[in-house]
Amino acid sequence: MASTLPPLVVTSVISEDAEHEGRTRKNTFENLERPGSVRIDVRGAFIVDEDAGSPPRTDSPQRTSAPDTKDIRLPHHKTAVSHIAVDIGGSLAKIVYFSRDPNGEGGKLNFKTFETEHIDDLLDFMDRLVNGEKGSGPTDLERHAQEGLYVMATGGGAYKFYDKIRARLGVEIYREDEMECLIVGLDFFITEIPEEVFAYSDENPMEFADARTDIYPYLLVNIGSGVSMIKVSGPQDFERIGGSSLGGGTLWGLLSLLTSAKSFDEMLSLAERGDNANVDMLVGDIYGSGYGRIGLKATTIASTFGKVFKQQKSSQVEEGKTPTPCGGHFAEEDISRSLLYAVSNNIGQIAYLQAQNHNLEHIYFGGSFIRGHRQTMNALSYAIRFWSKGRKQAYFLRHEGYLGAVGAFLRRQPRNWGRRNSAGEDMRGRRPSFTTEPGRGRRKSMVISG
Amino acid sequence: MASTLPPLVVTSVISEDAEHEGRTRKNTFENLERPGSVRIDVRGAFIVDEDAGSPPRTDSPQRTSAPDTKDIRLPHHKTAVSHIAVDIGGSLAKIVYFSRDPNGEGGKLNFKTFETEHIDDLLDFMDRLVNGEKGSGPTDLERHAQEGLYVMATGGGAYKFYDKIRARLGVEIYREDEMECLIVGLDFFITEIPEEVFAYSDENPMEFADARTDIYPYLLVNIGSGVSMIKVSGPQDFERIGGSSLGGGTLWGLLSLLTSAKSFDEMLSLAERGDNANVDMLVGDIYGSGYGRIGLKATTIASTFGKVFKQQKSSQVEEGKTPTPCGGHFAEEDISRSLLYAVSNNIGQIAYLQAQNHNLEHIYFGGSFIRGHRQTMNALSYAIRFWSKGRKQAYFLRHEGYLGAVGAFLRRQPRNWGRRNSAGEDMRGRRPSFTTEPGRGRRKSMVISG
Repeated sequence: MASTLPPLVVTSVISEDAEHEGRTRKNTFENLERPGSVRIDVRGAFIVDEDAGSPPRTDSPQRTSAPDTKDIRLPHHKTAVSHIAVDIGGSLAKIVYFSRDPNGEGGKLNFKTFETEHIDDLLDFMDRLVNGEKGSGPTDLERHAQEGLYVMATGGGAYKFYDKIRARLGVEIYREDEMECLIVGLDFFITEIPEEVFAYSDENPMEFADARTDIYPYLLVNIGSGVSMIKVSGPQDFERIGGSSLGGGTLWGLLSLLTSAKSFDEMLSLAERGDNANVDMLVGDIYGSGYGRIGLKATTIASTFGKVFKQQKSSQVEEGKTPTPCGGHFAEEDISRSLLYAVSNNIGQIAYLQAQNHNLEHIYFGGSFIRGHRQTMNALSYAIRFWSKGRKQAYFLRHEGYLGAVGAFLRRQPRNWGRRNSAGEDMRGRRPSFTTEPGRGRRKSMVISG
Repeated sequence: MASTLPPLVVTSVISEDAEHEGRTRKNTFENLERPGSVRIDVRGAFIVDEDAGSPPRTDSPQRTSAPDTKDIRLPHHKTAVSHIAVDIGGSLAKIVYFSRDPNGEGGKLNFKTFETEHIDDLLDFMDRLVNGEKGSGPTDLERHAQEGLYVMATGGGAYKFYDKIRARLGVEIYREDEMECLIVGLDFFITEIPEEVFAYSDENPMEFADARTDIYPYLLVNIGSGVSMIKVSGPQDFERIGGSSLGGGTLWGLLSLLTSAKSFDEMLSLAERGDNANVDMLVGDIYGSGYGRIGLKATTIASTFGKVFKQQKSSQVEEGKTPTPCGGHFAEEDISRSLLYAVSNNIGQIAYLQAQNHNLEHIYFGGSFIRGHRQTMNALSYAIRFWSKGRKQAYFLRHEGYLGAVGAFLRRQPRNWGRRNSAGEDMRGRRPSFTTEPGRGRRKSMVISG
């Protein structure tokens, strides 16, 4: 993969107070403390469809397939960007960088994911971005600093692998708080990128939400290996109100033992062909019918995996399905679907309860667990609709896995950056710039994952 | 097991309006509609310790081992009881019946559990109780009705196996609503049985709660194959506010595939020897340290099973532990502990959130999942303490698995039954009798399991 990537063009260093698009801004102490960065012109930004270099038509038919993560074209941005950003999580490392178009007409934000386990692949990739295709070996930190070249890093790996990245790339690493980056990234996607945020339903798997300026307060549910739930009251006002240890890592771990799947995509593919009723105990299995008096339908899942223990030796695998490698007589397709449902439903329920406790109407789901997978989004959406009786709304993002990486990328932006700000809109009394100063987020109570 | 059981003594039929202990009560239409039952004298009732026939000393040292489910002695009850009660769940069937002491000095409530899968064992047992040790074959329903002999049944199996039980035993089966029975049973245990309800902590694994009369409102979290959460505002005022499909059935099912354990007790025994840090991803695994800024300690579980996917091929099983039969290089001890924690923590968190939403301080955990197991109670207690910052309290019961069965047993009791009522206490303005009329419970909104 690394051999085909375009080199990051680092042609000039533009200091914080440089003029851009005819506007100037005052330098600040904060800006002087750190190496320079450039302003990114996001006017006209759009998500690149695989087979189209032009903006999507607004009258285009609704997508029926799961959305892919696409690069974001910035047709008006013409200068180089002096940094790349990486969000190193427990399972996956996400990287965001800018590359100029070969024809000089703008450029694009690129998104790549690596497995954290293969940290060296990530470092190879970053090394090529920073030091060029041939790799000049460890370079002098001071030289890169003079060039304004540096790496923004967030996620736990920014701390765990700090020394390793710094030594390998020979550039300065600026670490940013994970929760702050998630918020900055999400705010950017909500407010700046058209056709990024959508609601999911079976009938309309990608109903795009209009860009909003009055986005606060909202609940961000970030599902990676584990789950974090963050109440966001403003661009610098957030609180991690909860989480769960039952996240992507749980599903991947269980299915890596219980099925032959070697990747999460294979697991999702198994789940699509499965029938969870073969392993889950439904209300109908217990009652012989529904439990109508309290509204439990016969098809309601009473107990995830509830049929497994007692049918361990008696059940047969349906034709066309594959027995689990654990020796039980259950199909790995059915197992996959059951556990995908269970993890998704559980997160959806906890998210609803947290949103209810904190009086939040809008719930955004981010993180690498979702991957645009319809069953996952359906389960999460259904849980929110069901529990809230339709009063709360689940939103998804096409770049759901990159909130933290984009947030880290943007943390090195000057103020007054962004589409509306570029257009000179008066933001007084409205949404403040989502580009927050480091360390200014208000932290309230402390809570743990699971 | 069935061959050693004492026959249920059915010597007399005492009608609802019969005199007992010098008191009389007025018959009601409800009572006349159904066959007779007897009043049970619970004065001086106590839980029978295995090696003691006498009441426990009040100054006895605190128990340090997990509590067992014990029979309840009723030293003052001298007449026979004309019914038995059964609660048939998705995985387990729980039976409660009264037997007189051979020496004529009172008798006791007996508690037995069967696997629902082996319904015929349950029916054998019930048949012997109803028809005597030698079994007279299917008997005439009318004869049993005249004798006042019948079976109270609740749980899904009361519906699913209704015809089967009725045909086999030749007695009338009275079905009672599952949620109502849970409440009636719990109210009985809270208010009538000394040393039944306790709080758990590492320092004091069984701190008995004082019997209370002002018990409402409270949250009952019943953990069987699945989980039901019921808000109880009064003896006839309850609402199933939520639940989860991640319950005992999930743990038993997963561990029956992932380990060699053949019973839940074996699974719990594995869990006791395991270290979840070998399979769970801790905050320290991601950050290299804690994430102090938001209060996540290095030892906090970030992702249950989060190490499994990426270490599938690389890790080694510690000496003295057994590899999972699934081909992964993880120990079944570690797997068991991780999943026991995960299911317990998750239920604890959802219970806290529901209690918070509904402004409930007291949370009672019932159901066959708990089994007096210390790790389970510790995880549930810890979750409630942690999330509520010590403002909510988790309670457990020594007969946690028998709430529904005892509730069904008591549904055939006349009013004014019970210890305090027996003593002629004026209940006006205080707790009403917990013996509710069938079908009078107020049902509010409808919610599902998972």
